[in-house]
Amino acid sequence: TRNIDLAVVAGDGIGPEVVEQGLTVLDAALTGADVKVSTTELDLGARRWHRTGETLTDEDLARITDHDAILLGAIGDPSVPSGVLERGLLLKLRFALDHYVNLRPGKLFPGVTSPLADPGDVDFVVVREGTEGPYVGNGGSVRTGTPHEIATEVSVNTAFGVERVVRDAFARAQARPRKHLTLVHKHNVLVHAGHLWRRTVEAVNAEFPDVTTDYLHVDAATIFLTTNPSRFDVIVTDNLFGDILTDQAAAITGGIGLAASGNINPDRTTPSMFEPVHGSAPDIAGQGKADPTATVLSVSLLLDHLGLTEQARRVEAAVAADLAERGDRVRSTAEVGRELAARVAG
Amino acid sequence: TRNIDLAVVAGDGIGPEVVEQGLTVLDAALTGADVKVSTTELDLGARRWHRTGETLTDEDLARITDHDAILLGAIGDPSVPSGVLERGLLLKLRFALDHYVNLRPGKLFPGVTSPLADPGDVDFVVVREGTEGPYVGNGGSVRTGTPHEIATEVSVNTAFGVERVVRDAFARAQARPRKHLTLVHKHNVLVHAGHLWRRTVEAVNAEFPDVTTDYLHVDAATIFLTTNPSRFDVIVTDNLFGDILTDQAAAITGGIGLAASGNINPDRTTPSMFEPVHGSAPDIAGQGKADPTATVLSVSLLLDHLGLTEQARRVEAAVAADLAERGDRVRSTAEVGRELAARVAG
Ligand SMILES: CC(C)[C@H](C(=O)O)[C@@H](O)C(=O)O
Ligand SMILES: CC(C)[C@H](C(=O)O)[C@@H](O)C(=O)O
Repeated sequence: TRNIDLAVVAGDGIGPEVVEQGLTVLDAALTGADVKVSTTELDLGARRWHRTGETLTDEDLARITDHDAILLGAIGDPSVPSGVLERGLLLKLRFALDHYVNLRPGKLFPGVTSPLADPGDVDFVVVREGTEGPYVGNGGSVRTGTPHEIATEVSVNTAFGVERVVRDAFARAQARPRKHLTLVHKHNVLVHAGHLWRRTVEAVNAEFPDVTTDYLHVDAATIFLTTNPSRFDVIVTDNLFGDILTDQAAAITGGIGLAASGNINPDRTTPSMFEPVHGSAPDIAGQGKADPTATVLSVSLLLDHLGLTEQARRVEAAVAADLAERGDRVRSTAEVGRELAARVAG
Repeated sequence: TRNIDLAVVAGDGIGPEVVEQGLTVLDAALTGADVKVSTTELDLGARRWHRTGETLTDEDLARITDHDAILLGAIGDPSVPSGVLERGLLLKLRFALDHYVNLRPGKLFPGVTSPLADPGDVDFVVVREGTEGPYVGNGGSVRTGTPHEIATEVSVNTAFGVERVVRDAFARAQARPRKHLTLVHKHNVLVHAGHLWRRTVEAVNAEFPDVTTDYLHVDAATIFLTTNPSRFDVIVTDNLFGDILTDQAAAITGGIGLAASGNINPDRTTPSMFEPVHGSAPDIAGQGKADPTATVLSVSLLLDHLGLTEQARRVEAAVAADLAERGDRVRSTAEVGRELAARVAG
């Protein structure tokens, strides 16, 4: 029997509701397999911060590190000042656990209505760098609050950091039928970081000669995501551009209610973390209205990462079937979870 | 008789073709008015750089500064290394002439097909900061080309710079029927710059109490531009976010072939510069295929900036009428210009 120790960070708002359904579907997917999942719930997020002032302590981190993977619901609440939980918890996890691949599929499932009139066959994946760029927290302000304030934000990019994520993206492109990789950056303005990315893609391409590549400035990428999203296969890009493009990608493929993500350490020296792209949606929290589909698709990415490829495929297939047939039925969070679990169990 | 001295930077690729038509329409718009336009053509761009290695000399800049406004076609050619002309010419002009308001309307004209299935009534304007942010060129790299390379890009934001562009955006919002301003940033991650922007919008709002405001993270803004672009009235944002959002805005309103922009110094201490958002499109250069509409709409912004409001309105109305009736007729660059000029002349 294989044991999987899962750390669960349900978090804030709709987080607990969607995570519950994610776990239900996970159980269903593992029925019959010789795998036992045990979960550890971690009390992290807005409530904990209000109670203790803590976001993520060293002890929390040590406990989490002791697991095989992490399932995260959503972090954030309007009652907490902007940046506190994002930087003190969510990004701290991504950075501390060296989640350098932030994997975000952009797939338009049959039956899902895109806001685009003619989206075509949209099926790409964004490999967003997760541990560098403008997200490093390397900035500050002087004379704050005065007419002479200067605030800076520093994007830090290293050959080490860029190369490993680019190599991962090439490997993913090579494993896909189209074998195409698009680098997105803005090297005509951000020349130093941009040229590092460009040179790295050129260099690593030698290891993957069957993968074709092209390059788009980030502004042009938003145009193609609007006019011709089916042109994309694998996109590799920096942390901030990836943040922006994956929300746009979610919008054209049916909304962030369906967008899954994995914060992955491909070296497997730490647990990877799987989370829906959406936020905590406090306005609908606790009402059983949230769509758990993005979390369930994140569970599929989790299974895949753990090598349970067949189970991952079944979860994705269940979601695909559900999306193809859901029409405009209104279902509760739990109903969607139950129906997906039933489909997975087959 | 009022004299208008116009510096013309036709530039590269399709630049000369579209600028020619822009000037034709400008002439038509001023027929009968007691205004005389004289133009100075400046030889700037890829050809000049290949010939002399110069992008923009102090002498060029001095000559340009001596004019009332600048009309620019397009800058850039694949034969020039990325960044050279962008930073050495286009951005140098914006920075040297202190074009702190980069004004970019996002308007879906009747008759224009949007790639969105249900765009609604799209009519907003983006006030993009033009002289700060990640565009300042404040970055570098060490150990370049080695496995230990570190490349940085620094976003510089000042109270002075943010306040003046925010005030301009509020004034523009106040002059529009909906009187609404949306700040776009990413203050949950870029906390220092983000909070400066946020505090500034809150403070300046006191001077414009009838303007309502809201805030969106840049990633969420790309979602709303896809699902509900009619929610926007005036957007104020930083240089890089503005670059990204305005290309997406162009895409949803019919493409960059229609997107106009003004690089404006509202203090009028230097000439402002008007240019289509599109690039030099070397693949179709010299073939008379380029659509000059974005340049003509930029001429409308130019006229407006010079206080020739009625003429500006007529140029925009001519474009609107042309777009409403063009259907799928294929016309040359010159034909479009001629027909627009005829409409403007009435
Ligand atoms: C909440 C925020 C810090 C986060 C990010 O910017 O990465 C979110 O937008 C995401 O994409 O996961
Ligand atoms: C060419 C480039 C430097 C420029 C920019 O990034 O500002 C362009 O994309 C634009 O939007 O005018």
